[in-house]
Amino acid sequence: MDNRISFSSDYTKGAHPKILERLMQTNFEQKDGYGTDEHCRNAADRIRQLCGCPGADVFFLTGGTQANQTIIDILLKPYQGVVAAVTGHVAAHEAGAIEFSGHKVLTLPGTVKPEESGDFVYSDRIGKISAGALKEFIANFYQDENHEHMVFPGAVYISHPTEYGTLYSKKELEEISSVCKEYSIPLFLDGARLGYGLASRRTDLTLKDIAELTDVFYIGGTKVGAMFGEAVVFPKGVPTEHPIPVIKQHGALLAKGWLLGLQFETLFTDDLYFKISRNAIEMAELLRNGLIEKGYRLFIDSPTNQQFTIIENDRLKTLAEHVRYGFWEKADSDRTVIRLATDWATTREDVETLMGYL
Amino acid sequence: MDNRISFSSDYTKGAHPKILERLMQTNFEQKDGYGTDEHCRNAADRIRQLCGCPGADVFFLTGGTQANQTIIDILLKPYQGVVAAVTGHVAAHEAGAIEFSGHKVLTLPGTVKPEESGDFVYSDRIGKISAGALKEFIANFYQDENHEHMVFPGAVYISHPTEYGTLYSKKELEEISSVCKEYSIPLFLDGARLGYGLASRRTDLTLKDIAELTDVFYIGGTKVGAMFGEAVVFPKGVPTEHPIPVIKQHGALLAKGWLLGLQFETLFTDDLYFKISRNAIEMAELLRNGLIEKGYRLFIDSPTNQQFTIIENDRLKTLAEHVRYGFWEKADSDRTVIRLATDWATTREDVETLMGYL
Amino acid sequence: MDNRISFSSDYTKGAHPKILERLMQTNFEQKDGYGTDEHCRNAADRIRQLCGCPGADVFFLTGGTQANQTIIDILLKPYQGVVAAVTGHVAAHEAGAIEFSGHKVLTLPGTVKPEESGDFVYSDRIGKISAGALKEFIANFYQDENHEHMVFPGAVYISHPTEYGTLYSKKELEEISSVCKEYSIPLFLDGARLGYGLASRRTDLTLKDIAELTDVFYIGGTKVGAMFGEAVVFPKGVPTEHPIPVIKQHGALLAKGWLLGLQFETLFTDDLYFKISRNAIEMAELLRNGLIEKGYRLFIDSPTNQQFTIIENDRLKTLAEHVRYGFWEKADSDRTVIRLATDWATTREDVETLMGYL
Amino acid sequence: MDNRISFSSDYTKGAHPKILERLMQTNFEQKDGYGTDEHCRNAADRIRQLCGCPGADVFFLTGGTQANQTIIDILLKPYQGVVAAVTGHVAAHEAGAIEFSGHKVLTLPGTVKPEESGDFVYSDRIGKISAGALKEFIANFYQDENHEHMVFPGAVYISHPTEYGTLYSKKELEEISSVCKEYSIPLFLDGARLGYGLASRRTDLTLKDIAELTDVFYIGGTKVGAMFGEAVVFPKGVPTEHPIPVIKQHGALLAKGWLLGLQFETLFTDDLYFKISRNAIEMAELLRNGLIEKGYRLFIDSPTNQQFTIIENDRLKTLAEHVRYGFWEKADSDRTVIRLATDWATTREDVETLMGYL
Repeated sequence: MDNRISFSSDYTKGAHPKILERLMQTNFEQKDGYGTDEHCRNAADRIRQLCGCPGADVFFLTGGTQANQTIIDILLKPYQGVVAAVTGHVAAHEAGAIEFSGHKVLTLPGTVKPEESGDFVYSDRIGKISAGALKEFIANFYQDENHEHMVFPGAVYISHPTEYGTLYSKKELEEISSVCKEYSIPLFLDGARLGYGLASRRTDLTLKDIAELTDVFYIGGTKVGAMFGEAVVFPKGVPTEHPIPVIKQHGALLAKGWLLGLQFETLFTDDLYFKISRNAIEMAELLRNGLIEKGYRLFIDSPTNQQFTIIENDRLKTLAEHVRYGFWEKADSDRTVIRLATDWATTREDVETLMGYL
Repeated sequence: MDNRISFSSDYTKGAHPKILERLMQTNFEQKDGYGTDEHCRNAADRIRQLCGCPGADVFFLTGGTQANQTIIDILLKPYQGVVAAVTGHVAAHEAGAIEFSGHKVLTLPGTVKPEESGDFVYSDRIGKISAGALKEFIANFYQDENHEHMVFPGAVYISHPTEYGTLYSKKELEEISSVCKEYSIPLFLDGARLGYGLASRRTDLTLKDIAELTDVFYIGGTKVGAMFGEAVVFPKGVPTEHPIPVIKQHGALLAKGWLLGLQFETLFTDDLYFKISRNAIEMAELLRNGLIEKGYRLFIDSPTNQQFTIIENDRLKTLAEHVRYGFWEKADSDRTVIRLATDWATTREDVETLMGYL
Repeated sequence: MDNRISFSSDYTKGAHPKILERLMQTNFEQKDGYGTDEHCRNAADRIRQLCGCPGADVFFLTGGTQANQTIIDILLKPYQGVVAAVTGHVAAHEAGAIEFSGHKVLTLPGTVKPEESGDFVYSDRIGKISAGALKEFIANFYQDENHEHMVFPGAVYISHPTEYGTLYSKKELEEISSVCKEYSIPLFLDGARLGYGLASRRTDLTLKDIAELTDVFYIGGTKVGAMFGEAVVFPKGVPTEHPIPVIKQHGALLAKGWLLGLQFETLFTDDLYFKISRNAIEMAELLRNGLIEKGYRLFIDSPTNQQFTIIENDRLKTLAEHVRYGFWEKADSDRTVIRLATDWATTREDVETLMGYL
Repeated sequence: MDNRISFSSDYTKGAHPKILERLMQTNFEQKDGYGTDEHCRNAADRIRQLCGCPGADVFFLTGGTQANQTIIDILLKPYQGVVAAVTGHVAAHEAGAIEFSGHKVLTLPGTVKPEESGDFVYSDRIGKISAGALKEFIANFYQDENHEHMVFPGAVYISHPTEYGTLYSKKELEEISSVCKEYSIPLFLDGARLGYGLASRRTDLTLKDIAELTDVFYIGGTKVGAMFGEAVVFPKGVPTEHPIPVIKQHGALLAKGWLLGLQFETLFTDDLYFKISRNAIEMAELLRNGLIEKGYRLFIDSPTNQQFTIIENDRLKTLAEHVRYGFWEKADSDRTVIRLATDWATTREDVETLMGYL
């Protein structure tokens, strides 16, 4: 067994103890299947309230790629694709799950440029799309004489936090949302790590803002205290008459759907979701400050639970004996970019142990 | 909250307490993602041993439709379809999940005929395919001059127990397996309720037999003591070089795959899976005998945990006040066929309570 | 080279000479691509006029399976399938082209029963669906508690003439159309051999009736005097905002689309399509009468260009030395069902030659 | 009717008169369906001979997108995508036909850079991929720890001539082929305009070279003298046991397949294909020289039938009154890039007329 301390990702541990407790308590209750139970209803109600959108449709799915694939398939017509950053999870790391459903991922090229500035290498724009680039892309599409021979932009995908830990500001999201509205293209926000975005000290975006500015998003559970599960929210209603068969068709309809409902019901009791998200952020800040103090260069200026730093290969070798980290990319022949992720369960002691090895 | 006793299905409750206990114990251990952890490895090893096939490839997926869709997609070439009974889950109750992956379900028509005999209406052949009908179907296909304009039979799907609770005998499975081998068509056994099939008093099929006679099958967890999960076994190896991206592409690769491994590791410790399966069978027998004693007509002669009986509509109305049952179909204008399912957690008291209302 | 006279199918010859003439005349004119040319516009206008539906959308595709696949994909939502007779071309003979696009073919079982009566074996109902069976199927679907786990009936496919040469009466089509309207399900009529249906002496259905009673149909060219091509008509407009990219996506958008337009423009000049269709019918009647006179048993009572008869195997062997016929099926160990198809170019002499060998 | 002279594309006219002649001659012969006739056999034989690969499998399809979609679907496993230039037809202009079949197009970014040099703006590298960039892409893929979560490169697509009229040299193709062999990835060459590539004065690639260096390619007919059709060649054999159902499934199996065979049989009689290709090249050279003489700036240094030039918007307005051209893109606010395409039927007089308006 590998006993090294792990900062390699935010999905290495089980669930918040309150969730396990609730699972124990309700274990022999008999529930209705496929998400028609009271826990799903309660969780959905709480989410609607928190989002300030009483008319929202809420579904619970088991994981991120599954949620992305199913949501995008619900949003798109057959001749449409989804616009995403080149670095977007749907573009890069889902083994073609979107194409498997018949849709192209239309990537926005060149929107993110590395910049050297101060303590970090990349700006906070990495992993994000800009309203400007998006508008240009869509406008160019419609201006192209041959656009009926091309894939129509039918939805816009963003992740928040992004795969690089960065966040959209309220202004940025408003601008993107405004472009989407102008072209009647739904905006989808992948919130696999949404809790960590909302809890960041450097965000001015609230859950209600997101519900207002997007057409669909999900509140990640897998990486934020749940055993597994993502709560998919369509604030203005789901744009298909029959979402259940679509979900079923994707192999995404859990028989014991109440397992998902129960987890989100618990996470949205007594602000648990937000409290544990805040822990990850505090631990990430501790880590970030420690890195800077020790003279490490940050790779990206991440305001959330994923921190990226550049480390010499020799030192990394030693670190690897005690710590599991995420390999990100080679910085150059001598140095490596690594990801260190905190999560809902990371303790101050964990960070201190890690710092001891750095 | 609905406090009626439930016999409506075998996926209404949580998980065997030993599984919850293991989840508690390991909750803060840090695991590798996507099924690369030690629990998955252990569970796979135990399954290989129980099946007597050390070279088997084992994967853990979250649910039945997901498993069926992914497995069939792995087995089939683009121009092939899967042969199944008209009543097979993949043919009838998966919202087109197989077609969503581009494949036709080729149904064997007329293999099952209702028969009135003795205490029950339908024979034990309901829900099953026969080697004879299968062979005839495949032979006819290849004899058809135009078969290159038709969908090739590329895999055979059976469920065991079937959707009607019936079981294949060893001889029946050998014959089907032999037809499949003759035509080099892989045989896939959907074992969503496999435990209840293996634990039946009226079976001569062992897990080793199944591993020997099929090319892929799964050992159902969702309905047999696990919180969720199905263990997919390819006894002779998985016929694709890269199963992981295929699973990922189907949205079926759980980030915390160890949740599945841990559950099956527990189920295959100290024969737990078999013991709790036996409980469901014993309770089903108690129920079956009770029904016969009370003069109820059985609809199908089911040797497993699903029992089907015919009940007058008036009586059903009263029953429904106290018991949740599964509606199956209308028998005639006055009577209804209902399904009553026991499971790993059903108690003698549950059955007695139920019988009190019948 | 095979010099035997051919009655094996209705797609063995080129095109009506007037079409070749027009191709010669216009060969060096420079046309706009992808169906945006004047010939396509003219042909579409004539078809709109003939169908009495000035608002119809008309597209020209190259073949039957391509048309079926593209049309059905346009009609269906992802969670829907197309209802068809078990014998329907889309169900049986398109190598899974519908499933390749992600949709299930929902077959109506048992609607057609062989009947022995008078001079032929099968009734005129073979190959057809009935309004009654259709209604029962759809009603059962919606009554099923679990229908959200099943494939929704999203379109109805019929062929006219059917694959067996039979025809719907006006009353039958009205009834089917009425069931479709009741459930808001579009009705699609595959008219690969439509000319031969319209020209039959035993039909009371006109092109205008078909345009009125269906939501989409096509006027077959490949089998009725064109070199190749099918004219797809949506009498009430095509139910997608962007049909061109959908057609392109199916690989079905011919660069030189005017080739198709020109052919249909010619076929719908001076009633050519109807005149040449009539020829096939007259020749089929000649053949039919000849068969009866010679004591042959008809297999199906076909009022169109495909005639089916039962012939002793010995006699068939001799026939095969001089005539190419279509093998249909074994009648019994001594006799075979064959198809003899006339077409727009069949001559009286051809039929007489054939009769000489029978 | 639009009587302006047209240089807008190479698919505006019918077919070489010899093809029409052959269609007339054979019009009433009776042919076997679906490509099983003697013309298809003859055409395939001639192609095998010309390519120097007696074991090649040859199929005839109706158009480019259809061919690309079907070929790529035959080449790829479900978890694989096709690597192409960003500007490749399959990446940019097929309305998502590849994704419709479930596969991702993996684009090689940044391989082509605009360069100002001499008489033209872009270098001859535009539209092409380089062996170096390809190798780097594939090597990076396999080095990525997470590549099992990504789309595998399963085939390489190049067009020759490219969408920009440019050509690969023999050395360039050898290097690309060598990278493909190193990684066991099949190489597919889209030859929609292959004739014009082979006839260029600035090529050292022969048909035999292409057959040797690629795994599949097609010889374009639609744009090179045929009415329609592309001859698909798998020099080392087609990598599926059953290509016919796959082709059928794509709606790509023409009932009167002999129409395609007859055209290629004619094109490959007496070197017709090569002679008429040469005409297009000679006319393109005439046009190119004329443009340079008149002081026009070339946009790309194209050695084939597509010529690209930059023209002032005012002048373009006048030109448009007499000439149909292809809009390519805006050069800047005052000038436009246009495409002028010659073809197998372009006459010296056509070019002179055009030059008169320039």
